[in-house]
Amino acid sequence: MTKVRKTLSELAGLVGGRVVGDGGIEILRVASIEEAGPGDITFLAHPRYRSYLATSRASAVIVGGGAPPPSSGKAVKAFLEVRDPYIAFAKILHVFNPLQQYDGGISDHATIDPTAIIEERVTVFPYVYVGREARVGRGTVLLPGVFLGDGVVVGADCFIHPQVTIRERCRLGNRVILHAGVVIGADGFGYAGEGKERIKIPQVGIVEIEDDVEIGANTTVDRATLGRTLIRRGTKIDNLVQIAHNVVVGEDAIIAAQAGVAGSTRIGNQVILAGQVGVVNHVDIGDKARIGPQSGIPRSVPPGAVLSGGIAAAPHPQWLKVMTLLPQLPRLWSTVRGLERKLSRLAQRRRKGVKKDARR
Amino acid sequence: MTKVRKTLSELAGLVGGRVVGDGGIEILRVASIEEAGPGDITFLAHPRYRSYLATSRASAVIVGGGAPPPSSGKAVKAFLEVRDPYIAFAKILHVFNPLQQYDGGISDHATIDPTAIIEERVTVFPYVYVGREARVGRGTVLLPGVFLGDGVVVGADCFIHPQVTIRERCRLGNRVILHAGVVIGADGFGYAGEGKERIKIPQVGIVEIEDDVEIGANTTVDRATLGRTLIRRGTKIDNLVQIAHNVVVGEDAIIAAQAGVAGSTRIGNQVILAGQVGVVNHVDIGDKARIGPQSGIPRSVPPGAVLSGGIAAAPHPQWLKVMTLLPQLPRLWSTVRGLERKLSRLAQRRRKGVKKDARR
Amino acid sequence: MTKVRKTLSELAGLVGGRVVGDGGIEILRVASIEEAGPGDITFLAHPRYRSYLATSRASAVIVGGGAPPPSSGKAVKAFLEVRDPYIAFAKILHVFNPLQQYDGGISDHATIDPTAIIEERVTVFPYVYVGREARVGRGTVLLPGVFLGDGVVVGADCFIHPQVTIRERCRLGNRVILHAGVVIGADGFGYAGEGKERIKIPQVGIVEIEDDVEIGANTTVDRATLGRTLIRRGTKIDNLVQIAHNVVVGEDAIIAAQAGVAGSTRIGNQVILAGQVGVVNHVDIGDKARIGPQSGIPRSVPPGAVLSGGIAAAPHPQWLKVMTLLPQLPRLWSTVRGLERKLSRLAQRRRKGVKKDARR
Repeated sequence: MTKVRKTLSELAGLVGGRVVGDGGIEILRVASIEEAGPGDITFLAHPRYRSYLATSRASAVIVGGGAPPPSSGKAVKAFLEVRDPYIAFAKILHVFNPLQQYDGGISDHATIDPTAIIEERVTVFPYVYVGREARVGRGTVLLPGVFLGDGVVVGADCFIHPQVTIRERCRLGNRVILHAGVVIGADGFGYAGEGKERIKIPQVGIVEIEDDVEIGANTTVDRATLGRTLIRRGTKIDNLVQIAHNVVVGEDAIIAAQAGVAGSTRIGNQVILAGQVGVVNHVDIGDKARIGPQSGIPRSVPPGAVLSGGIAAAPHPQWLKVMTLLPQLPRLWSTVRGLERKLSRLAQRRRKGVKKDARR
Repeated sequence: MTKVRKTLSELAGLVGGRVVGDGGIEILRVASIEEAGPGDITFLAHPRYRSYLATSRASAVIVGGGAPPPSSGKAVKAFLEVRDPYIAFAKILHVFNPLQQYDGGISDHATIDPTAIIEERVTVFPYVYVGREARVGRGTVLLPGVFLGDGVVVGADCFIHPQVTIRERCRLGNRVILHAGVVIGADGFGYAGEGKERIKIPQVGIVEIEDDVEIGANTTVDRATLGRTLIRRGTKIDNLVQIAHNVVVGEDAIIAAQAGVAGSTRIGNQVILAGQVGVVNHVDIGDKARIGPQSGIPRSVPPGAVLSGGIAAAPHPQWLKVMTLLPQLPRLWSTVRGLERKLSRLAQRRRKGVKKDARR
Repeated sequence: MTKVRKTLSELAGLVGGRVVGDGGIEILRVASIEEAGPGDITFLAHPRYRSYLATSRASAVIVGGGAPPPSSGKAVKAFLEVRDPYIAFAKILHVFNPLQQYDGGISDHATIDPTAIIEERVTVFPYVYVGREARVGRGTVLLPGVFLGDGVVVGADCFIHPQVTIRERCRLGNRVILHAGVVIGADGFGYAGEGKERIKIPQVGIVEIEDDVEIGANTTVDRATLGRTLIRRGTKIDNLVQIAHNVVVGEDAIIAAQAGVAGSTRIGNQVILAGQVGVVNHVDIGDKARIGPQSGIPRSVPPGAVLSGGIAAAPHPQWLKVMTLLPQLPRLWSTVRGLERKLSRLAQRRRKGVKKDARR
């Protein structure tokens, strides 16, 4: 796929690491430690994989502090010692897999409103639709089937994958990546009244997405009722996530797949929501809070909190027993309290009896 | 976005409310109570926001019974007193944000089978595909990338957002809104046999969606194996919801984001399913039942029931302790029962002893 | 929809069953037991539906061993006795609903790179995009809006529904069905570093999907960081499922709607994951394991295990009580242990007291 070649010393220079062993060996590819062969650099993500070193056929291995002697690998000729092997791995992957360059062409099979502003070096694929007075920043790529509603603003160097919908007036910063099937700015889920009297509350706000946000495939971010739903700088959202109307997600947050955040909730900076987490509406998740998988969050969470929820699955018959007893917890407590009372009465009587005995 | 201007008295007339203060002031916009400024009307959704009144710069505020004196707001010149502020808010939002009018044009870049029937004032955007003998009712709008399979029927005044797929023979009533990425009529998930012998059960039924239904972005409603999957009048479904084959959802139900309903289950009228709820197959959820977020519903639910499920997340170390003890509930019960037996034996012996003492 | 007519004896021949009653009756359609009328064949999926026989107006009924006498049905003239009624039902449905034949035409409104290879009898609908050096096998159908990235390989006789995205270099086997809105090969969710230092790890691997896999609407399967995410032969995946990077799903597995599998996890052959299950990263689910709805799987699961998780919803007030007590389980245990100690002390004293009494 690529013809990049680098010596290990060159790579060390690029990522700020130290070569242990032969810095002159040539690296052609990056591979996982199980699959790496000659010409490959790989990395030791975790000390527990250290045993792989003995059999690895990789030419070089990225390691954290304390590189083992190169002789410890069958074929491994050198190590690249760095502070954070994972970051070095990511950077070296970028070196060997440079982003595809797009030619800045605009397909004849796209529909672009004459009032839209398309800046320089924008690439527009077939079947893209760009609405009235929309604006697309330089270097941005719109893959096939992308829809930009009227007045949408997309910043520079964004990458919008196929079938993405960005509805009217929503705004994206620079270097935003939206994966295939993402929907930005669908109506928030808001109704007034009940039953047959129920009426739709027009959702006239927008979605604003700041710089360097990445949003996973088929995720949905709803527009605000009034004002805006906001995803702040650097936040990364996985696939099939739901972000409801008027939610604010802070900077550098991480939201894993299938999590859902209900209306008007605020997610702080650097918060981590694991997969399938659900957060109710109108609460605050403090900065740097970390929420475990499948957790339900019914109230606000202080900054830095580390919460877990969900229940590990268990063998079915055991589970059935536990689940039968769980609703009886209140009865269990009152049984135990009854026992406490009886026991203390008994102990009291015994003490009295002993005293009586003693008096006799 | 809009140039509508109304006096407060005019708005009172439109929503059936009473003006307290100056009915002649001119309203230009609707805004949230925190953000409202001069020319804005806002609303007090909940008494707990009453403190905002003192600092609000809104020109007018929609309130429920018992409007505070206008003097209580810094800039607030008048109140609009109504029975249900939320409904009045929704109606006034409609006044200031009238639905966009579409011209009824049919794009040259759409593909419409010659046997399809497109009624009057239908708007068809580029890259729409309309199959054989499909029918689209008057006033309906099909946004870019919409797919209507052969024999699909869409009623009047529907709004079908980008990238929506409606597969063959499915039927929509009037005023149905499908948000971007919705899939109506994909095959239900049905197989017979096991392992390598497993074969697909053809899903030859349809989906039928009645009038005034709204379905959120990227939600999926599967076609029936035989017969139909049915979403009845007035029901509102949020984003990323799964409705399986042969499900029936009653009238005016509310299904929040990421909920899932398994095959052949019936959801009654005015039922509310909160976010991430899961309902098993072949059960009945009675009319007006309300199911809390993340609940699992393994059996039928009577009408009007109010159920909760899921477990609130807790600080990780506390959670770990609880989760270690939970599987030991059966042992705890038997310990407690053992204590009960011992205690009653002890009490009995004591009574005998006391009697013995008494006899002495 | 179809004009197929078969006698019951012919159907018996096709599915390998035995006719009980009049084999000469003509069957025109398949219908559910509640809705079947004259000319219809239906089936008894479960003995509990046997009561329907008395009122069914079906001409014939597929049953398992031990067909009731034909006279037991009002209109039922005959039974088709088979080993597995569900498989026979599926096969007969295929007979009456043959797959639609496509003409192999390639739309003028599709965009196919000149370096792509399109084999014989491939049908390409409008607004399909096929990238550089992609390859599409014979008999495959690409519905409107399908996107195939550069170097994608799609096997023979695949059916790719509208708006499906298959990103660069991903590979599909033969007879694969992808339902509308599926996204294959979006970037896996991988970053190195924290906060502002966080950088994206390029996801340069692929997704490989083997023969006879079916994937439900709006499901996402992410490409591997390195190497491949793999879905093996015969596996069926429902709607809105998330399969993360580097996951391997074995053969003939079943993954129900809204389940999620985190990165690098291995799902064995013939595993069943029910709806809304969540599996953490880097674990192994053994062959033929079966995991109940909403279960969270935090660790590896041995082959053949039958696990359940989640908690059935309960009436809200009862639930509230249980949920208040649940975090107090550790205190309950220590209370019970305290009781045990006190009781044994009391019993000991009593024994001593009794001895003292006895000595007196």
